[in-house]
Formats: sequence, C-alpha cells, structure tokens
Amino acid sequence: MTKVHNFSAGPSILPQEAIQACVEGIQNFSGTGLSLLEVSHRGKEFVRVVEETQATIKELMDIPEGYEILFLGGGASMQFLMVAYNLLENKGAYLKTGVWAANAVKEAKLFGTVDVVASSEDANYNYIPKNYVIPTDADYFHCTSNNTIYGSQMQSFPESPVTMVCDMSSDILSRPVDVSKFGLIYAGAQKNMGPAGVTVVIVKKDILGKVTRQIPSMMNYAVHIKSETMFNTPPVFPIFAMLQNLKWVKKVGGVAEMQRRAEERANLLYNEIDQNPLFVGTVAFEDRSKMNVCFLLNDTSLEEKFNAAWKAAGISGIVGHRSVGGYRASMYNALPMESVEALVNVMRTFNS
Amino acid sequence: MTKVHNFSAGPSILPQEAIQACVEGIQNFSGTGLSLLEVSHRGKEFVRVVEETQATIKELMDIPEGYEILFLGGGASMQFLMVAYNLLENKGAYLKTGVWAANAVKEAKLFGTVDVVASSEDANYNYIPKNYVIPTDADYFHCTSNNTIYGSQMQSFPESPVTMVCDMSSDILSRPVDVSKFGLIYAGAQKNMGPAGVTVVIVKKDILGKVTRQIPSMMNYAVHIKSETMFNTPPVFPIFAMLQNLKWVKKVGGVAEMQRRAEERANLLYNEIDQNPLFVGTVAFEDRSKMNVCFLLNDTSLEEKFNAAWKAAGISGIVGHRSVGGYRASMYNALPMESVEALVNVMRTFNS
Repeated sequence: MTKVHNFSAGPSILPQEAIQACVEGIQNFSGTGLSLLEVSHRGKEFVRVVEETQATIKELMDIPEGYEILFLGGGASMQFLMVAYNLLENKGAYLKTGVWAANAVKEAKLFGTVDVVASSEDANYNYIPKNYVIPTDADYFHCTSNNTIYGSQMQSFPESPVTMVCDMSSDILSRPVDVSKFGLIYAGAQKNMGPAGVTVVIVKKDILGKVTRQIPSMMNYAVHIKSETMFNTPPVFPIFAMLQNLKWVKKVGGVAEMQRRAEERANLLYNEIDQNPLFVGTVAFEDRSKMNVCFLLNDTSLEEKFNAAWKAAGISGIVGHRSVGGYRASMYNALPMESVEALVNVMRTFNS
Repeated sequence: MTKVHNFSAGPSILPQEAIQACVEGIQNFSGTGLSLLEVSHRGKEFVRVVEETQATIKELMDIPEGYEILFLGGGASMQFLMVAYNLLENKGAYLKTGVWAANAVKEAKLFGTVDVVASSEDANYNYIPKNYVIPTDADYFHCTSNNTIYGSQMQSFPESPVTMVCDMSSDILSRPVDVSKFGLIYAGAQKNMGPAGVTVVIVKKDILGKVTRQIPSMMNYAVHIKSETMFNTPPVFPIFAMLQNLKWVKKVGGVAEMQRRAEERANLLYNEIDQNPLFVGTVAFEDRSKMNVCFLLNDTSLEEKFNAAWKAAGISGIVGHRSVGGYRASMYNALPMESVEALVNVMRTFNS
C-alpha cells in the first residue's frame, strides 16, 4: 500500500509507535490479561495511566505549581460553556478570531456580558487583531491561540490585566508557552495531543470559586479537581492513547523539538507558496499559522488537475474548509517532513 | 496466561471479536491505509460508522419512528444535567433508587422543582419502591432501570402519565424494552454497549422545544439532532468500538438472546447464593438485578479466605462497592456462562 501523507485537520496524524502502543493496550493492558477497553477506570493500572498523563503534560509544558490538569469529555465546545459557567460573573472579554472563538462568545452570552475586544470577522478572519485593549473590569480575557479553519495563529500573547483563558486546541505542544501567564488553557486532544474523545483542561486553582451562581457538578472545574478528574467514568481509551503520544513527544525532544519541526515544515511550505506564481496564501504574513497552512490556486480552473496531482502522490486531507475554500495543509506534531516535501514537490512540478 | 473471568462493574467485559475488530480499525481503518485514530470524523468512512451504529441500535431495540439517536461525550452524569436543561420547565418527578438517581435529582434541582415520588434510601437502596404516584403536572418522570451499585433492577416500568425518561446505563440491551413508552433513554456505553467515552441518547423529537430557557449549544439535544450528532468532533474510537460490540450482539441473536443469557447467568448465581448457607443476597428478592448480583458472606471473618479462593480461580472485579460491602458480580452481555460457573464453583467448594 502507498504511504498516505495525512494532512487531516483533526482528528489527525499520530506517531506510528503511539498507534502500536494502543494496539498492545487493547490486546493486553499493563499485564492484566484484559483489554484496556474492559478494565475498571478505578483499577490501579488505569489510575497510573491518568497520573502519568498528568505528570507528562506538566513536564512537557513546564507547568508551575498551583495548576490542575483535567481530562474531560465533550470536546473544546464544552469548554466554551464551562469557562463561562465557572468564571463569568459580570463580564467576559473575548478576542474573536474565527468560528470557534465566535462560538465561545455565543455560549458566554448566556451567562453575562460579553465584550468582544477585537474581531477579524470583517476580513473572513484572515488576520489576528492587534492593539486591542482588555478591560480591567472583565472577569477574564479569552483568546484562541490558533485558528484551524483560517490558518492564523497568535505569535505572542498579550499582557492581560485579568485572568487569561486560551483555547489551544490546535497548537498546544507545538511551541513553548509560559503557562504562568494563563489562568486556564484548554485543548481538544485530537490534533497535537491524541485521538478524539478527550479534552485537556489546565486550570489554576485560585481562579475558581469566585462566581455566585450554582454550578452543575459536571460543569464545575472544582468538582472535577476534587475527584482527581474521575468524578465519573472518564474517556479511558482516549486518555491512554494521548499518553502514548505524549511519551513520543517527550522521547523525541519535547516541545522545543516540536517547535523546531513545526518551523521546518511551515518554512518549506510557505516558501513554496510565496515563490510559486500558481499559489497564494490566504492569511496576513505575520499571523500565519505553523499548524494549518491555507492557500489558494490563483487560477481556480486548475483545481481539478491539481487535485488529481496531489491525490496521485498519496496526499490526503488538504481540501480547505468550506468557509475559506482552496487548500489547507494541517501539519501537526506527528507529520514527518517527507509528507511536506511530497506536497511541495507536487506544487513545484505542477503545470511546469 | 490464565483466563481472567471479568466481573468488572464497568467499564466491563467486551466480546473478543469486538476487541479484535478494534485492533484492526486502529491498524488500518476501513481500507484507508490510516489508523481510525487519525482520520477525519467527517470523512465518508467514519460517517458510515456513525450511521451504521445508529441503524444497528434502532434495529436491536426496535425503535419506532420519531426517535433520534445521539452519541455524546461526558458520560451519563452529563445527562442528569442535559435532561433537566431540555425538559424541566416547572417540575421533574424522580424515582430515587440509588446514588446515580440521587445525583440526577441533585442536578435537576438547579433547574426547577423536583418531586421525588418515592425513594428506597431508607434501606440503603436495597429495593425498588412500588405503588408511587407520578404527578400529572410534572414535565417528565425520571427513573433508573438498573442500580449498578446496589444490584436492584426495575422488573417493569410504570404507565407514566407524563414523558418517561430512563437512565438505562447498566442494563440497556439486556432485555426487550418497549421504547415507545419512553420520551428519552440514555446510557453510558461502558457496560453493555461498548467502552467508556460515549453516551447513547435515544430521544423522541416531539418532547423537545417546550422549555422557555435558552439552552447552551452543547447541552441542547435539538442542536445535536440538527447536526446529526456531529455538532463538534465526536468520540470517534468509542463509537467505532461500540459498533463492533453491537454487531456481535446482533450476530449472536440480538436482545432476546442477551436476555436469555442474562437469565441463565443470574439464575445460576442467585440459586447458589440462596442455597449456600455461607452467603446471603442483599437485595429484595423481586427486585434482584440480572446484571449486578450483590451478596455478602454471613461470616465476615471468612472474607480473607474467600478472597484468596476466587482470586486463585482467575476471577476479577467482584469486590462490592464500598457503600454495600461484600461482593458484586457484574454480569454484562459479553460475560460467558463459564465465568459464572467458575464463580459458583468457588462458592460451592468453599469451606466444604
């Protein structure tokens, strides 16, 4: 079978050795003679998996004391709601940089006032707003570090006068981040962390307990913290699979190496886009994402022929989101350089 | 390696062929050349998995027209909240038969009045209340068909004058149920349906849209229905694994055969408990669960010796929940008779 170059936007490529470790866990988990799929989540073997996953994230992201790590179901979309439930007393400040940020705004409005400090909606979210002011009377400031659909990325984070909350679903673990600047970071696992089915929440304990509303148990970060992220049955397999991926990240060099690889991949592809007269990038130069590279054919009548060319090269998953069109190459942590080289080779030799 | 007899309360035993199909899906999903863990949830291969899972549940449970099937994250505990969010306008009626039912009551109280129509809390939930009256002015009546911790089970359902909602997490697919009597059925998958990480919701569409509150998107059944259970990234692997298990249920004879097997297992074990002077059941005879069989040693000083005996026989997971003590043998759909025979054999030969 031809090798598939997997540029899927998420769920997305995982390292082969993590996939193999999942197979082994499903066949015989931790020497129990049982499948990972049929053991109690409260058994010592799985409790150890949860603890090791937390410890590995702490180590990889250099998370300071005072933060807790939760593994929740429901996806990042559930966090749009939980963030507001737990933190929004009077006013939440939001940076609107894409559809997911807009959804976060929408859910928060059910809980209080939302102040959109800046938005790039006017330009189909093709840039990251700058020079916005975060109101000092907001309960928190919410931003999205990387916008999967549009291919834009915050290259730095503001000095927020209030608790900073960040949806890092699509670029977590791809670059060093100073966690101490954030009160809460969340990420659906299915891009850089693992498979679909679990969302990682990194929360500073002292930001909680400040709203007056009663919070339903499953929405309450404090409840999940108190029960060591086992308030109810957690998504067992997705957590296990995430750990296998995190072990690989650690083994090959951690977040610094992930950053080096991301830059190497992104430089190669953006250089081709910029040098090749057939293609054009869709995002403001300084806001280009190193995870999701969006580009168009200048002559859309060539699409059919170009599509045939990349498909023939074993490339998968580069059709752009319907709201941008064209192409999107998602290049998460596990994507090897040879896949980017394969795509660039198709672009370079196309129609020439 | 000795065969393990897996009596785990959930996550719990799954058929070997479902486990093997999971391994194959992780290695090469549906001929894509990619792992199930790294494909888009919106690709045609996975959309087909979702549709086939829905169709198989419809067929196995003989679900009439007008119902939708959703696959959500967060576990049954999330449903305690979602049921109230979507259905509780003035008053919810609840049957309190265990800790999970009590948790459902607790969450619903945040949304309106809760009328506990009957409770067996006075006797540590060792029976199912009868002859209760469901108020006709309630928005819905909520019950728990099987109480995993206590080993009690509703042998029949009341004629409810209002929409009936049932948490069937621990006995779904173990006996035929007339779905048309229910407005909503939900079940965490990790007992009879599949692995942990997905919750099945079967909801009659016409019970929705009757509350005046604004419902957050992720809490809103109508939103999930409209997006064909893909409002956001679903728990991909747990859904796939569930389908493999459902295919096995269908192949071996469907729900009727699951019921026959459950009765055969339960009869064997309860007969031993009743005939053996060393043991005593903890639940009212007529309310005994065919899924979770709870029993005590009459002489607790024998516990250490009995524990050694069943462990030596390769039996796993029969330590009772801390709130009941003693022993609990959970006997879900995939548990073979030979495992029950192994346990009964240990009991029969113990100390004799």
